Amino acid sequence: MPADDGELRPGEVAAALPAQADAGLFFIGTIRTPWHTRAECPKRGSRDGPICTIEVDERWRLALTGLAAHPRVQVLYWMDRARRDLVLQAPRRTGKIIGTFALRSPVRPNPIGSAVVDLVAVNGTTVEVRGLDCLDGTPLVDLKPDRTTA
Amino acid sequence: MPADDGELRPGEVAAALPAQADAGLFFIGTIRTPWHTRAECPKRGSRDGPICTIEVDERWRLALTGLAAHPRVQVLYWMDRARRDLVLQAPRRTGKIIGTFALRSPVRPNPIGSAVVDLVAVNGTTVEVRGLDCLDGTPLVDLKPDRTTA
Repeated sequence: MPADDGELRPGEVAAALPAQADAGLFFIGTIRTPWHTRAECPKRGSRDGPICTIEVDERWRLALTGLAAHPRVQVLYWMDRARRDLVLQAPRRTGKIIGTFALRSPVRPNPIGSAVVDLVAVNGTTVEVRGLDCLDGTPLVDLKPDRTTA
Repeated sequence: MPADDGELRPGEVAAALPAQADAGLFFIGTIRTPWHTRAECPKRGSRDGPICTIEVDERWRLALTGLAAHPRVQVLYWMDRARRDLVLQAPRRTGKIIGTFALRSPVRPNPIGSAVVDLVAVNGTTVEVRGLDCLDGTPLVDLKPDRTTA
């Protein structure tokens, strides 16, 4: 994995970030997973992986109406521990210098993660899914039916 | 399509939005498409659709390094004309009242669109793709290799 809060590795390049944001995100819930460090996270979520729990804020309860009809759901989340200024990265796995947009690394100008997961159950404001790979406590940004099954 | 700036339709319900944002997005470029109104946009992007052009800001030029090796790319964008407070919507197409998270409507607390497209070419800071369905001028939020081909 690339550096996310430490020094640049050889070959990595950072850009100056814009002085201010262009739009604001509302965190709409919290994702609960078994993984508490980046090292523990699977590189890629698996349909055979553990059930993870998405706790949606009460404010958005009604917005879950009908979600249970969709077997596959896209989850967007905010990878809030990653630095945002790298344009070239040296992933530990390959060591090869590569552009940020050619990687799915959390290190990117807008650290939004996207996963398509199997929906297990919707209970009130709790959504159980399989196939996530993010850290416990990750802020939720969006849920929508997977495009290919919607 | 649901209301995005007008009155609520019968059965639609809005939530009070949080007083402030939890995180800030940087717009990293602009998407150019042939569609200037929501009515003109295809409901779903097609691999047979027109080539659309993604203009990435100069600041992020190096971040495109290596992207051209990926035949399929995920594009995240900001649907900046949509209202954000609906929890129940009545899509014009069906008229059925349904929760926001059970729809891919632009009307949602965080109006982030996600599309997986065919990469046609990368020329400097311009990325040509097929398969988008968003409005001309839509702000770009992220580019990453499609998970299934990365």
